Amino acid sequence: MTEQDKKAILHLVEGSRDAIVCSIDDEGFPAAKAMFRAKNDGIRTFWFSTNASSIRAGYFSARPQACIYFLDAATVKGVSLTGHIRVRTDAEARQMLWHDGDEKYYPKGVSDPDYCVLEFTAERGNYYHAGNKTLFSVDEIGG
Amino acid sequence: MTEQDKKAILHLVEGSRDAIVCSIDDEGFPAAKAMFRAKNDGIRTFWFSTNASSIRAGYFSARPQACIYFLDAATVKGVSLTGHIRVRTDAEARQMLWHDGDEKYYPKGVSDPDYCVLEFTAERGNYYHAGNKTLFSVDEIGG
Repeated sequence: MTEQDKKAILHLVEGSRDAIVCSIDDEGFPAAKAMFRAKNDGIRTFWFSTNASSIRAGYFSARPQACIYFLDAATVKGVSLTGHIRVRTDAEARQMLWHDGDEKYYPKGVSDPDYCVLEFTAERGNYYHAGNKTLFSVDEIGG
Repeated sequence: MTEQDKKAILHLVEGSRDAIVCSIDDEGFPAAKAMFRAKNDGIRTFWFSTNASSIRAGYFSARPQACIYFLDAATVKGVSLTGHIRVRTDAEARQMLWHDGDEKYYPKGVSDPDYCVLEFTAERGNYYHAGNKTLFSVDEIGG
């Protein structure tokens, strides 16, 4: 992987407000949904907040296999990251993503039992650009 | 489902140049990639062209479970459709999507053995809008 590709991958991810988060549903079908990229550590770890009662949190509790995808539609470049999602409800994870005003979504505040954090850890990735694809390991990119 | 929602779903799909096409890879992980929406019949059937030798065609040959997702990032509305993908290499499918100049991708022309058509048939869907989601069957929408 070239230095130019590494930079392009990090730029695409950091420039994306949303990630398309993909799970496997209870009937074995892939399921996609855009989620707000609340926080990330390079391309290795990403955190999303959602309702603990949500269908998606249920899917990931049952099957942690996940993919998150970032698309720059204008340049037709995409980055997919494959790994696992862990559903976290511990205080550390709750505090990490909590912002003033989130009571709008979770009326009981940071300890609302319906508030949870999806923690995605990437293992491998694929960079799609100009009809090409470049497979990479997360260790190659760092970030 | 309201008439307004039906219209919004069709509008979002028809206004999208690309679909995020999701498969399940050989290791059981979901896999997402943007593909050009080459042709569709309402929200029931969609066709995409790709290389027969592509990783994705291989995934769908082995596991037809699929999801395609359309996102309007500006309004944060999304439509996911769940169903099956069939990998077609018959002459009818080849001709249907072929355009002058596609020799750029498939040098041997419309009968190039590396040219194939992914035919997605939707069974059920989910419309994400303003924090809500509305499950629907494809029969409800028609189009």
